[in-house]
Parts: sequence; structure tokens; C-alpha cells
Amino acid sequence: MKGSLYELQQQLDEFIAQREWQKYHRPKNLAMSVAIEAAELMEHFQWCDKDPEEFSKEEKEEIGEEMADVLHYLLRLASVMDIDLYEASKKKIAKNHKRFPVDIAKTMKKSGC
Amino acid sequence: MKGSLYELQQQLDEFIAQREWQKYHRPKNLAMSVAIEAAELMEHFQWCDKDPEEFSKEEKEEIGEEMADVLHYLLRLASVMDIDLYEASKKKIAKNHKRFPVDIAKTMKKSGC
Amino acid sequence: MKGSLYELQQQLDEFIAQREWQKYHRPKNLAMSVAIEAAELMEHFQWCDKDPEEFSKEEKEEIGEEMADVLHYLLRLASVMDIDLYEASKKKIAKNHKRFPVDIAKTMKKSGC
Amino acid sequence: MKGSLYELQQQLDEFIAQREWQKYHRPKNLAMSVAIEAAELMEHFQWCDKDPEEFSKEEKEEIGEEMADVLHYLLRLASVMDIDLYEASKKKIAKNHKRFPVDIAKTMKKSGC
Repeated sequence: MKGSLYELQQQLDEFIAQREWQKYHRPKNLAMSVAIEAAELMEHFQWCDKDPEEFSKEEKEEIGEEMADVLHYLLRLASVMDIDLYEASKKKIAKNHKRFPVDIAKTMKKSGC
Repeated sequence: MKGSLYELQQQLDEFIAQREWQKYHRPKNLAMSVAIEAAELMEHFQWCDKDPEEFSKEEKEEIGEEMADVLHYLLRLASVMDIDLYEASKKKIAKNHKRFPVDIAKTMKKSGC
Repeated sequence: MKGSLYELQQQLDEFIAQREWQKYHRPKNLAMSVAIEAAELMEHFQWCDKDPEEFSKEEKEEIGEEMADVLHYLLRLASVMDIDLYEASKKKIAKNHKRFPVDIAKTMKKSGC
Repeated sequence: MKGSLYELQQQLDEFIAQREWQKYHRPKNLAMSVAIEAAELMEHFQWCDKDPEEFSKEEKEEIGEEMADVLHYLLRLASVMDIDLYEASKKKIAKNHKRFPVDIAKTMKKSGC
């Protein structure tokens, strides 16, 4: 099914099991790995503040790869912790709708502004 | 469609558009936000190294929420950069299959070990 | 001695020993803590890109506090790992002088530009 | 003066000025850089949880170098924001003495435990 988080998650679980890497995939290590990959993603934006169209095809390829790495550790953490990331995501979106009513949100002061 | 990344992405794009927050969602800021949320996720694992079953229902709830936050900024970055995260993910999994053949992977030295 | 890294380090070591927190200060946990505090620092710059003089006195106070938190975990990691941060710093500065000769450095492409 | 933060800070300021890199050293970019280097430091602790004496001389050398990188961006941020990191550090230590009285601190629940 195109676009399915569960499909990706299952493929990653198999990838790890085949390589017997489960012993390394403790919750703590996976949370660290999400953060490490997030920092590698951030490197592509470190010194300049470009518009989306200023990125080359190659840069976008590399950025997509780093984004995938972040997602993959998130999905492995979901598996190990037995957390349904799709359901958690739906729930958080619903919560944010209540937390940030449109009228108030439009005039909110953003962090660092 | 249950589990669809694209569905979540579309809901988030609408959420942001309704609140007129697109101006804040520059690629650089979104990459930072992924890393900031990843660190908030990491806080739940900061001082101890627990097995999955040692986490309480409440902790798992909170962890799921932080995981959703990381995912949501990833999806927003995907939208803004016009990167297909699902396709990038499939591609990276295929690449890793080649990069880490099962036999070699089983005996690899892991970073920090 | 005003400005001494070693003085700060010693005060932090005492602070931790008095509270019997050494058991939590494993190298891995301290490295995570540096990253967690670095992300809290980053939150002050998340959505805008202000010049230094645009920050209020209160913001600068808060930013200074987050910077101190990063430094403190670095110094604790230095103590626990028996690494001399001052010497490591001098060494890295010397190394960077060789790595980035002035002429070449002036025209280098920066990451994300 | 051995151990002086101010000495390191001055050497770094000169290093950057010689290379005309000040234009890249916006507060936002420096805060990101602290976090990026913190993640590189974390990589050395990603999959295992070793005692200090289990690290080789080479690993400690590399770890010291990453720690220096974190410190250097902190010091550059201090310069750019005109924040005295040493004074901020002394202030934060004093604040933490009040915030965590010894008796209470000994029995505190730590984050992720």
C-alpha cells in the first residue's frame, strides 16, 4: 500500500532481525539515534537560510536520505516500545487542533521571535 | 487509509495553512524543529536505560507524543522541500540492503562499542 | 581565578558528589545531556533569525543559562572521562589553523550554502 | 593563563575574523552548530554504555576533539551575543545550589528513570 507507515516499519523490523541488530536497539539507543540523524539533517541547513527552490537536485536527494534515517529510527523505536506511531500522530494532531484555535494561533508569538 | 504518511502530511499542511504559519516554516527552521523535538524525545531516556516493559502507560503516552512531534516536522519539511518521504524511505531501505550485506552486518563494530 | 574552566569544573564535581548523582553521570548519559541542553538553547532561535541586538535582556539571560547548562555537562563529561577540555580545546584550535589556511578558508563553501 | 575560557574565546574570535567567517556566525547558526557538534559527540556513545576506562586512547582523543567543537561554538555564540559564559556559568551553579538542596536532591527521581 503506497505511503503506508506500517509497511515501512515492517520492512525495517525485518532488516534489523536479519542482521541480528535487535540487541543494539534498546529504547535509549534508538532515541539517541533519532537525535543523531536529526542533527545530520540539520547540517544541510547550518550556515545559510535558503528557499526551497534554491536547493539542487543532489542536495534534495541527500536531505531526503537524512529524513529517511530519522523516520527509520522513529519506526524502530515504535516497534521496540510497542507504540503505534500512526495512532500517536493522529492523536497529537487532534490535540493540537484544540490547543491552538485558529484565531489565537494566527497572532501567537513564536519561540525565538 | 489507515497508516498513510500522505494522509498525515495533508492534515498537517492544512493545520499550518489555517493558522498562517507557513511563513515560519522555512526549511532551516523545520530542520531545527525536527532536532528540537528529537531532543525532547531523548529526555525520556536521559538517565536510565530501561527495557520497553519498564515504561508506564503514561510514559509511553508521552513518548508517543514526542515521536509524533518529530514525525510532524519531518512531514512539514517534506511538504516545503517537495520531497516524497515515503519514496525516500523506500530508497534508503534498498540502499541499506546493499550497504549492509547480512553476513558482514552480523559482525560489524557498532559506533561507541 | 576569573574565567577558569578548571574552577567551574571543580565546583560542578563537588555539586554532583554532594547530591550523590555520580551514579547517573555515565559517559553516555552525559553526552546525551549535552545534546539535550544544546537543543534547549536552540529553541531560543527556532523560528526567527534575529541580530544580536534584537534580543531583550531577559532573553539573553535565559540564553546564557542554557549555554551554561551545555558547558556544565561538557565539564562533567570531561571529569568522568578524565579528558582535559582546556588542552583538547587548545589542540583543536591548533589543528584547525592547519586545516583551514586563511586564503583557502576565505572562499570555502559552507555547509548548507 | 592556563585554563582560561576568555583566552580560548579570544583565540577563536581571531581565528574567525582572519577567515572572514563572521558573516556566517549569526546567533541562530551558532546555536545550530552547538547542537550539531553535540550530536557528533553523542555518536561515540550511540550503541554501547561503556565505563570510562573501557575507552581507548584514540577514542578519548576523538571524544575530546568533539567536546572542543561544542565548546568553541558556545564561545563564539558568547562573543556574538555579548554574553559572559563564565559569569553565566557561576550564576547557574549558584542557582542550582538553591534549586536542588542536598537532602531533596539525593532522593529525586531522574528523568527517564
